[in-house]
Amino acid sequence: MNDDTARAWAYLSRVAEPPCQDLAELVAAVGPVEAADRVMCGKLEGRLVDETEARRRIDCAAKDLEILTGLGGRLVTADDDEWPLLAFAAFGGCGARQRPRSHPPMVLWAVGPGRLDDVAERAAAIVGTRASTAYGEHVAADLADGLAGRGVAVVSGGAYGIDGAAHRGALAADGLTVAVLAGGIDVPYPAGHAALLRRIREDGLVVTEYPPGMRPARHRFLTRNRLVATLAGATVVVEAGARSGAANTAAWAGALGRAVCAVPGPVTSSASVGCHALLRADAHVVTRAEDVVELVGRAGELAPDEPRSVSPLDGLEETERRVHDALPARGARTLDEIAVASGLPAMQVLGPLAVLELSGLVVSRDGRWKLALR
Amino acid sequence: MNDDTARAWAYLSRVAEPPCQDLAELVAAVGPVEAADRVMCGKLEGRLVDETEARRRIDCAAKDLEILTGLGGRLVTADDDEWPLLAFAAFGGCGARQRPRSHPPMVLWAVGPGRLDDVAERAAAIVGTRASTAYGEHVAADLADGLAGRGVAVVSGGAYGIDGAAHRGALAADGLTVAVLAGGIDVPYPAGHAALLRRIREDGLVVTEYPPGMRPARHRFLTRNRLVATLAGATVVVEAGARSGAANTAAWAGALGRAVCAVPGPVTSSASVGCHALLRADAHVVTRAEDVVELVGRAGELAPDEPRSVSPLDGLEETERRVHDALPARGARTLDEIAVASGLPAMQVLGPLAVLELSGLVVSRDGRWKLALR
Repeated sequence: MNDDTARAWAYLSRVAEPPCQDLAELVAAVGPVEAADRVMCGKLEGRLVDETEARRRIDCAAKDLEILTGLGGRLVTADDDEWPLLAFAAFGGCGARQRPRSHPPMVLWAVGPGRLDDVAERAAAIVGTRASTAYGEHVAADLADGLAGRGVAVVSGGAYGIDGAAHRGALAADGLTVAVLAGGIDVPYPAGHAALLRRIREDGLVVTEYPPGMRPARHRFLTRNRLVATLAGATVVVEAGARSGAANTAAWAGALGRAVCAVPGPVTSSASVGCHALLRADAHVVTRAEDVVELVGRAGELAPDEPRSVSPLDGLEETERRVHDALPARGARTLDEIAVASGLPAMQVLGPLAVLELSGLVVSRDGRWKLALR
Repeated sequence: MNDDTARAWAYLSRVAEPPCQDLAELVAAVGPVEAADRVMCGKLEGRLVDETEARRRIDCAAKDLEILTGLGGRLVTADDDEWPLLAFAAFGGCGARQRPRSHPPMVLWAVGPGRLDDVAERAAAIVGTRASTAYGEHVAADLADGLAGRGVAVVSGGAYGIDGAAHRGALAADGLTVAVLAGGIDVPYPAGHAALLRRIREDGLVVTEYPPGMRPARHRFLTRNRLVATLAGATVVVEAGARSGAANTAAWAGALGRAVCAVPGPVTSSASVGCHALLRADAHVVTRAEDVVELVGRAGELAPDEPRSVSPLDGLEETERRVHDALPARGARTLDEIAVASGLPAMQVLGPLAVLELSGLVVSRDGRWKLALR
């Protein structure tokens, strides 16, 4: 990308509130440099006039690029190898097209060693409420750790609560984690996560479609959420209240054809109300990282069954069980007594008794049988 | 029911391990007195020979009836008004017929003021592990209390843990609760629940298909579970480990066409593993008694929506939100500043500002706007 092109992209990134499909179409038609020129000079038609009116005279592209360079970052557009073309193609699906602002980003501001295309190939979003509980933070960190250990990138929004726990869990496991911001790349938000975001810039990837200095705002969080959902094969909501933004990310995931997952929690906890609402709406139940890997993983990468305890009685036939159950906890019984207790004829008790004796579950002595000590 | 008939039923209840479909068919064909005579004299054919061989010489019917009378109880059969014919008809469904021992009971031993037909009309089963947590017991009692308050009978198995908490919750709310036993009506099991079972006999209903003195056994719990499931319109598993008997009751409920429900819990708790497995298998998510009432209630008895907090921003249009978000937390802004921050042309900002001012969300002074204090 040469300097003119970079400046054009930087200018275009700010001039209209993203995502602006009209601007993206102009850029696709005439290229970024010519598009930026036309916007600057006001040589526009249709809705683009209004969409760029407020900001078209602001040109801080050079300064914005300086800030990005200062952070060691880069612009990423559809012209770059790193552009996650397949992931963003989801916006063309019929579920996505029914939602407002459902367009791919045009320019992304990115800082960090992680590559967007690598991320999008194998990632899960872990999101949730800022008003999280110790339970939710524990589960978020644990899931992130498990995903990181299985080569799955953990995408989240950098917020307090569940988001922060997920990023930290992935970092602690030396995994790849991605924070998608709702403001400028140089605006640490929340301020208390400045150090965390710095670590993610160093070891993972911080990405945003907003130019430097841009303040996060309510509608920008909702717009940002579509990028979290589209970069991940599955979105896992760990804790969410009745009105959590995480439900919005989950809705994006569903509309974009991604797996929507929720972690159950205590029904007595208001922080899990949103998760249970998602489960009612057929979200996948997630209790372990393996459940998520199955959803974002390569074909055939199935979660192993939950470990089950095994009882020596598991392999018994029905009559063998009835005979076994007919023996008292202590003391021995005769054949006839066992027949009466089990309700089976005496002749049908002998076979099962022999099987039980061979399995070591029952011992016989002097024509009486008793349970083996275990 | 005259004395001969009662003695015949009592004899038949013990002579074959229930449910014994061959015996039920004989009784349906020739009546209980003649059937009992034929069994006693060994005038039988086919499988019934084996099925009654071990116990046909035992006749303690008179003593069994004395025990029942001593407890103030009664025998209930298909000849009684109280017989829940419709509930037991579920055993004829195709889902049920695929399971072993899937037959209606022939005779029930019952003690308590509750009537089986009343129960079956509006009941929910609350079941779960004996190894319950304080969370599970709290939820079970709370659900039972809520169901009792809405006129739904609470059916369970009288066991330690979730079962006991459910019975106690219903009793405390002066509701109807039913314990279905896996042994004789005079065998309090577990022994530590003798007092609880006595209270249920006094205020609710204790019922079993096993004759007095019969010890509960592993296979009898599994057989009993089908009665718990069939008497209730919905089975709610509150807590269950990976190998809980509650999963068996849930499986019966599913096979019998009843609603299968599970209460979510912490994914860190092994006592909720079985519930989450049920939720994966499409069980209904239950977090409140209202959810269960909707499933067992009369048509149209829907659970009210969860209460949702309401924000004054809820009713805003998208551009109004963008303008609102463009105002800083503190300080005022000019029209042009608001236009730049929101990315909207200045002329399109005025309308939304007027709406926001009318709603009391924004105040203006000297050509500048700021957020209203709230």
